[in-house]
Amino acid sequence: MFVLGIDPGVSRCGYGCVEGPGRAVAAGVLTTPPSDPLPHRLAALGDELAALIAQYRPDAVAVERVFFQVNARTAMAVGQASGLALAAAARAGCEVAQYTPNEVKQAVAGYGAAPKEQVTRMVQALLSLPAPPRPADAADALALALTHLAMAPLRARIGR
Amino acid sequence: MFVLGIDPGVSRCGYGCVEGPGRAVAAGVLTTPPSDPLPHRLAALGDELAALIAQYRPDAVAVERVFFQVNARTAMAVGQASGLALAAAARAGCEVAQYTPNEVKQAVAGYGAAPKEQVTRMVQALLSLPAPPRPADAADALALALTHLAMAPLRARIGR
Repeated sequence: MFVLGIDPGVSRCGYGCVEGPGRAVAAGVLTTPPSDPLPHRLAALGDELAALIAQYRPDAVAVERVFFQVNARTAMAVGQASGLALAAAARAGCEVAQYTPNEVKQAVAGYGAAPKEQVTRMVQALLSLPAPPRPADAADALALALTHLAMAPLRARIGR
Repeated sequence: MFVLGIDPGVSRCGYGCVEGPGRAVAAGVLTTPPSDPLPHRLAALGDELAALIAQYRPDAVAVERVFFQVNARTAMAVGQASGLALAAAARAGCEVAQYTPNEVKQAVAGYGAAPKEQVTRMVQALLSLPAPPRPADAADALALALTHLAMAPLRARIGR
């Protein structure tokens, strides 16, 4: 199974492609210039996400599930970016899943309160990478893809 | 000027087209079935918004600016829908503006704390409608379009 993880954001949107069980195919960050008007940035991000999905043709797309306890201004942008990511994935006919940050930590590092650096090291180990994946947005996206690879069999069994 | 107002939401997304200074061209609500998976609903909503913009070819699109003080779960969906609306409008080359609910009340009813029913009656009067516009989502979208028609000259002058 080929999974694209997406860590949504308007300024920086991480992505990471993993071919199961553990080969990293691509990882990086889509950015939009803060000097551009928000609607243009969202349109550009939506187009780039659609192009990414068309290029890698993943079986499934795993998107971070966003919450609003943090910063209302940031959360708004993250929500808007996640809407574009979910819509682009569904439009391309991919299976789509959302995971909370805690679910990702649980799946990748074994416990839901794992510190960020430990998750990054586990991603490096699971994908046999020569160095910890950078930047953080790309590492988070790879962790999302690995989470889906770990969870997909269970999800299929319970019919989610 | 021809303005499309959008009151974003995933379950119900209101729209209203106004040709300045005060002729209602269309108003209604786009809905997506709650039984469908969220990514499919977002993809369908994005496609329908793009089709609406292609059909009416507005000069400008006015989208309600969303905040997160209310219900975090609803706010998430509204944020995702607003991202799709802003992106669709920018992609179509429209001028795009966002207005808070208070700015809409101020522009349409003359003060920012106006009750909903008074805003609806003012929309009816400004558009010379035989009855108050219904449902509420469509009335809100018409109010957004009227707000942009009232604000656009000022926005142009201050270069926003």
